[in-house]
Amino acid sequence: MFYHDGKLQYEVKVDKPNPQFAKMLQQAIGGIEGEMKVCLQYLFQAWNCRGPAKYRDMLLDTGTEEMAHIEMLATAVALNLEGASNELKDDIAAGSPFMEQVMGGANPRHILSSGMGAMAVDASGVPFNGSWVIGTGNIAADMYANVTAESAGRTLAARLWKATDDRGMKDMLSFLLARDTMHQNQWLAVLEELGGLEGNHPIPNTFPQADENKNFNYNFISTKIDSESKAKGRWSEGKSVDGKGEFTFDKAKPFGKEPNLGAPDPAGFAQKEQMSGGLKSKVKKIID
Amino acid sequence: MFYHDGKLQYEVKVDKPNPQFAKMLQQAIGGIEGEMKVCLQYLFQAWNCRGPAKYRDMLLDTGTEEMAHIEMLATAVALNLEGASNELKDDIAAGSPFMEQVMGGANPRHILSSGMGAMAVDASGVPFNGSWVIGTGNIAADMYANVTAESAGRTLAARLWKATDDRGMKDMLSFLLARDTMHQNQWLAVLEELGGLEGNHPIPNTFPQADENKNFNYNFISTKIDSESKAKGRWSEGKSVDGKGEFTFDKAKPFGKEPNLGAPDPAGFAQKEQMSGGLKSKVKKIID
Amino acid sequence: MFYHDGKLQYEVKVDKPNPQFAKMLQQAIGGIEGEMKVCLQYLFQAWNCRGPAKYRDMLLDTGTEEMAHIEMLATAVALNLEGASNELKDDIAAGSPFMEQVMGGANPRHILSSGMGAMAVDASGVPFNGSWVIGTGNIAADMYANVTAESAGRTLAARLWKATDDRGMKDMLSFLLARDTMHQNQWLAVLEELGGLEGNHPIPNTFPQADENKNFNYNFISTKIDSESKAKGRWSEGKSVDGKGEFTFDKAKPFGKEPNLGAPDPAGFAQKEQMSGGLKSKVKKIID
Amino acid sequence: MFYHDGKLQYEVKVDKPNPQFAKMLQQAIGGIEGEMKVCLQYLFQAWNCRGPAKYRDMLLDTGTEEMAHIEMLATAVALNLEGASNELKDDIAAGSPFMEQVMGGANPRHILSSGMGAMAVDASGVPFNGSWVIGTGNIAADMYANVTAESAGRTLAARLWKATDDRGMKDMLSFLLARDTMHQNQWLAVLEELGGLEGNHPIPNTFPQADENKNFNYNFISTKIDSESKAKGRWSEGKSVDGKGEFTFDKAKPFGKEPNLGAPDPAGFAQKEQMSGGLKSKVKKIID
Amino acid sequence: MFYHDGKLQYEVKVDKPNPQFAKMLQQAIGGIEGEMKVCLQYLFQAWNCRGPAKYRDMLLDTGTEEMAHIEMLATAVALNLEGASNELKDDIAAGSPFMEQVMGGANPRHILSSGMGAMAVDASGVPFNGSWVIGTGNIAADMYANVTAESAGRTLAARLWKATDDRGMKDMLSFLLARDTMHQNQWLAVLEELGGLEGNHPIPNTFPQADENKNFNYNFISTKIDSESKAKGRWSEGKSVDGKGEFTFDKAKPFGKEPNLGAPDPAGFAQKEQMSGGLKSKVKKIID
Amino acid sequence: MFYHDGKLQYEVKVDKPNPQFAKMLQQAIGGIEGEMKVCLQYLFQAWNCRGPAKYRDMLLDTGTEEMAHIEMLATAVALNLEGASNELKDDIAAGSPFMEQVMGGANPRHILSSGMGAMAVDASGVPFNGSWVIGTGNIAADMYANVTAESAGRTLAARLWKATDDRGMKDMLSFLLARDTMHQNQWLAVLEELGGLEGNHPIPNTFPQADENKNFNYNFISTKIDSESKAKGRWSEGKSVDGKGEFTFDKAKPFGKEPNLGAPDPAGFAQKEQMSGGLKSKVKKIID
Repeated sequence: MFYHDGKLQYEVKVDKPNPQFAKMLQQAIGGIEGEMKVCLQYLFQAWNCRGPAKYRDMLLDTGTEEMAHIEMLATAVALNLEGASNELKDDIAAGSPFMEQVMGGANPRHILSSGMGAMAVDASGVPFNGSWVIGTGNIAADMYANVTAESAGRTLAARLWKATDDRGMKDMLSFLLARDTMHQNQWLAVLEELGGLEGNHPIPNTFPQADENKNFNYNFISTKIDSESKAKGRWSEGKSVDGKGEFTFDKAKPFGKEPNLGAPDPAGFAQKEQMSGGLKSKVKKIID
Repeated sequence: MFYHDGKLQYEVKVDKPNPQFAKMLQQAIGGIEGEMKVCLQYLFQAWNCRGPAKYRDMLLDTGTEEMAHIEMLATAVALNLEGASNELKDDIAAGSPFMEQVMGGANPRHILSSGMGAMAVDASGVPFNGSWVIGTGNIAADMYANVTAESAGRTLAARLWKATDDRGMKDMLSFLLARDTMHQNQWLAVLEELGGLEGNHPIPNTFPQADENKNFNYNFISTKIDSESKAKGRWSEGKSVDGKGEFTFDKAKPFGKEPNLGAPDPAGFAQKEQMSGGLKSKVKKIID
Repeated sequence: MFYHDGKLQYEVKVDKPNPQFAKMLQQAIGGIEGEMKVCLQYLFQAWNCRGPAKYRDMLLDTGTEEMAHIEMLATAVALNLEGASNELKDDIAAGSPFMEQVMGGANPRHILSSGMGAMAVDASGVPFNGSWVIGTGNIAADMYANVTAESAGRTLAARLWKATDDRGMKDMLSFLLARDTMHQNQWLAVLEELGGLEGNHPIPNTFPQADENKNFNYNFISTKIDSESKAKGRWSEGKSVDGKGEFTFDKAKPFGKEPNLGAPDPAGFAQKEQMSGGLKSKVKKIID
Repeated sequence: MFYHDGKLQYEVKVDKPNPQFAKMLQQAIGGIEGEMKVCLQYLFQAWNCRGPAKYRDMLLDTGTEEMAHIEMLATAVALNLEGASNELKDDIAAGSPFMEQVMGGANPRHILSSGMGAMAVDASGVPFNGSWVIGTGNIAADMYANVTAESAGRTLAARLWKATDDRGMKDMLSFLLARDTMHQNQWLAVLEELGGLEGNHPIPNTFPQADENKNFNYNFISTKIDSESKAKGRWSEGKSVDGKGEFTFDKAKPFGKEPNLGAPDPAGFAQKEQMSGGLKSKVKKIID
Repeated sequence: MFYHDGKLQYEVKVDKPNPQFAKMLQQAIGGIEGEMKVCLQYLFQAWNCRGPAKYRDMLLDTGTEEMAHIEMLATAVALNLEGASNELKDDIAAGSPFMEQVMGGANPRHILSSGMGAMAVDASGVPFNGSWVIGTGNIAADMYANVTAESAGRTLAARLWKATDDRGMKDMLSFLLARDTMHQNQWLAVLEELGGLEGNHPIPNTFPQADENKNFNYNFISTKIDSESKAKGRWSEGKSVDGKGEFTFDKAKPFGKEPNLGAPDPAGFAQKEQMSGGLKSKVKKIID
Repeated sequence: MFYHDGKLQYEVKVDKPNPQFAKMLQQAIGGIEGEMKVCLQYLFQAWNCRGPAKYRDMLLDTGTEEMAHIEMLATAVALNLEGASNELKDDIAAGSPFMEQVMGGANPRHILSSGMGAMAVDASGVPFNGSWVIGTGNIAADMYANVTAESAGRTLAARLWKATDDRGMKDMLSFLLARDTMHQNQWLAVLEELGGLEGNHPIPNTFPQADENKNFNYNFISTKIDSESKAKGRWSEGKSVDGKGEFTFDKAKPFGKEPNLGAPDPAGFAQKEQMSGGLKSKVKKIID
């Protein structure tokens, strides 16, 4: 169950409102690297959590914190959109500074649809999509999904920080950058606690490696033709990272044949010309 | 540039066609854990690759291999859908075993839309979505996205392997499981080569930590009230995983105030009752 | 800012696990009538709220409560999916009762993607979509969106209640039905407080009716030809519901002409045959 | 069955073509507040209509009228995009006024994809989505969905009206604003005819309130901690709006316990570390 | 402008209601091969039509007819869903024949969301998507899009016809099949009228072929390695179909080099290891 | 199986980097007219190909070539985004030329999400959607889908060619335009080989025309009222294009009646007022 206190986790100030920056901030709300995604991802992982109870608690703790980050960013969007409202716009129509911004690089739906508020969309105006909420039921796979989210998220926050010279916005982003640093460390700490590279991999570690094809599980396969691949490195020779095999470097070659599908099923209504001899007459019988 | 030889990377046989398993296999083609995603993800990362050339080559090598995996799975779907075509269905209409399957757990679009072929959709019939193709321009963030994809992918393959007792399908999946093992190791090997946990984190390592808020970058924040959080572990005390800080365990508290947005902009056409005193009269002037 | 206590708002028990009912419950989580939508809708409305502070508080109160409803339903999904786990499935492959359910009416992604947990999708497996989160910046429009959500939501809950005879599930749903009753009343109470039908309508009440075309603002227009429309009722005569006009019943007729677009712009590369005489020669000059 | 006469319901003139305004108008065509949505929503409600025949007729009447509104807006988009075609653009390449607009705030797909015509997308270029078409089978729930659509729709139209000073466009919008006024009244009139607040609520009125949990159906639940919620109003005391209960104001508290899911099912391939003692050995047996 | 008469274009009878067939029929309503797509596609093409007026009229004629086809199919869905309503379901809960169907192969949202009515979704429950509505502004390209739609549409109708033995449904489908035959012919007739293969191609015929690279415009390029491609046919030698070139058969080979992107821009926050020597020091300056 | 050589099929040079043109090029990558669509469409058609083997080979040949086109365009996007990186941007924040572009007409996600690389999205930033990948299992229907794709594709390429005066970009586009010319011809050549208009139509040619309603299969139906339709042409009289009928011109009229759905099923929880007399009492019994 959840509660709120109505206050912001960290101060949100906008010195110089900027509808175009509001559009960019939406990526951190409703984008695939954004806070809605991590909030829901950690909460769904918590709600579906099977195994030691501390992980459920930890996921709830952080998922709930992320909700406060959406709140901060939504507030930042609203404040950036207030830029044009200091004076009454008698001449808001085309030609006014405000509408120029809306019609230029800003998101027109920030006025048309939300009346100067944040929306559940990304910086292109594409809606948040539930498919981004990853919870596999395998805790190690989930932790990597979480590290990924915080890595892309901190990269996004850094780019936003660089894109503005508004002191309030830079201060807010320096807080969010710090939280992303912590959360990268946090999910990595779980992976360490669960056994690190050798203990966790290959994920899922409950699938017996005896049942995977052992001729292909530590081979780097190069599909390059005509010239030598430059793709040599840690992954092409030596002990595998999970400690369970030896890397090799192989040239790609087919172990299967050209596939040969059967004739079209008459119920699928392919063209006559696709039918092989035998079936053609049967089809003829049906269609006559 | 790309080439093909028309053969399968590994043999694809179906002993006992099963339209319901065909539906499940679609998750490995067009699902968020599927081969379309990893194929396009590695190729886009290659095409956008800036930095040492060997990473571009490696990404092209593996992205191109994944194309062959889509090919194998698409063939497997087509063969599983041929189950009902061994005999001419004079009575294909409702009531026949084939249509019962299509109408039951199978995907009706496998007959209605594709005429018994694979589609670019997942196991629920939801289309592949380009938003899943992650390429951030930051190679460490991308490698985590790739480990994540291969972890969820191998988990999916294991579940599919468990869900069938068809020998041909189990053999194909044991090959794909092996490739997922390799690819988890491969992307982890890049991360090791790039400096491991301390060298890479916090990602992006080009953003100066001096510019993030140092009061909040290694603190686990618990939002739990009423009772003690069980969320204690590697992440709540001791040296941080990236070696650059000390973990602490803090109770959540607000550092910001209740946000206070300005009055609605008249151009946004809020209700009169939302307007504050001052603006109300201005609005009145407009609407009169 | 937000907090949690890890407990459920109301008890969630499943007497007889049922993966097919788990699939149906997803509609109440990630569907357009579901709890993710209302939770995010109320919170975004709160964060964007301009006007009297009590409405922000109320929206935060209820948005936060809805988060607890997602938690309850996610728990219910997970418990319904545990149905097959009472005994170890040595024979989980095709043919076992469990897999038959998964392959029949259940959602295969509940095993393939989430490992028996809830997902951010609806009963068809279609992901939650951020476009459903309505916050217009106009509080009356928003209240109607909220009444709508709770009306469709309570209808959904009633249908789910009817579809199960599991006592635990019926009990949980009777709680959610009660909350939907309250929330319908709550948003209607705001509308009453804001002035009721005459005070609020036409929404937005800040747009001057003098500027709308007064020949068409209280006319029911019937597009029916050949026979008399049966569409007579409260809306076709008498005082309008907002008290500002008189309803009339009119037959549809065009007040505009056939539209006449200009010739295609050469930069649009229409076919030659679409070009009118004058432009054709100009195009010719370009393409020669 | 449907017919057309090729004329516009109301005149559409554009005095000063403006590709950026064309982009904004798309919100009224393919956006969630737009005419495609209401057109299809009313028609699907009509086609699924069970109950008194007059409602089917009314929905068909208005759904068909909305088709004419899409037609008007599509014409307006096409005319706004013709702005640059008054003279032959020898220099249409980068640097020309037209391409500057396309590359600036206009929708590039208005030239690239549609060749200067309207599309089934919103102002951000996001495609119309069928999930927005609401028809619940419950006429009262549907009427609220319709009032909501017309409220958001009229708010959108007002914002568009404010955003342009083109006389033709303002005239067209003043017509559409008038129709939205009528349609708000129309759906409210149906609700009045069906019994008003007391007769309709709680929706659905066929679900017996005896079966909802009577301890929670008229309680405002505040999730606010630390300070007093300001959320007091018509909804927190007094008779409920539906006349069937008394509002109370309660502080949130959990009535359920911490949820406790079972151990992971081995077929789900969680990590070993998630398994509880008992199951672990069973898993071991499987994977050895 | 549009009108209706409330009658069906052709009779819709269901002898034996079948919720599973209702699910399949949804493909013909909201699927990519369905009637919503063609209806909106023809209407948008009409509204955007520039060039001879008869094409606008024709597109309006047929787009309006397609609206009547959605109406027929929506009616068919509703009637197929009434199957279980002949008797009052005292025992509608799990276990009853009706709910078994809903929970098996039927679409659960047909009861949960629409209360036994049609929805704007396809046979998998995926919502209609506005991106499918093709109108390019080039009439020949549009006619091919229309032939495509009617070809996939008639194939779908044939498969539905085969999948049912309900006499009423077969009769309705034989009408829709006939209309698809006409519409295939109709769009082909326009292409003939516009100049046939030689007159229309390459589309757009207003782009001067002098400006396309003449070394590559009639060459079949085979990317097959290792063995001879079997892809020989009408397209690999002889006069081209558009009469403007000679087909050749070429082996693929690259005419470009390996691409070489510049170093990462510091503002993009790649990892340090991606930076080349020169930039690294600059970055260092920034981050120190 | 697939291979690569790391080189570009044709040279990609950008003389004057332009982030806004990069945004437009995305339409040719991830748009519905773009190369991802045709690449995947041809490959899925190949993998599902039943019938003469040469068509499978041809589809693989061309599908694999299209992959090289995505590669070229992705490279072009990356190079166009490097425009601002020639000098170190000390002042990248708001006000700098680069950020102005990003915040103006460019796609902000090209910096925020991809760090100056291509993405799997269209020119509006809308993600690629797997529903666009058409493979019906009927080869003639598929060939029309392919001609359509290449017609819209070449039109798009022409518009992009016109929109830039960068010599490198124009050269690359002149190559792609040439390939589109070939591919239009190629798919038309297959249709000719398969029997041309009379041999292929109506598609599918395996559905017996005896089973379609012969009263409606060659009739142009005009839905226009009030005035004469101008829609007279090749399609309204004379022999049909498929040679199997005679065109007629008919005025639309209904052959069906007003539909009459049954009363609402009580399990659907419609409102009481929708129930007919008989059922009302039954409902009453349930709800009392």
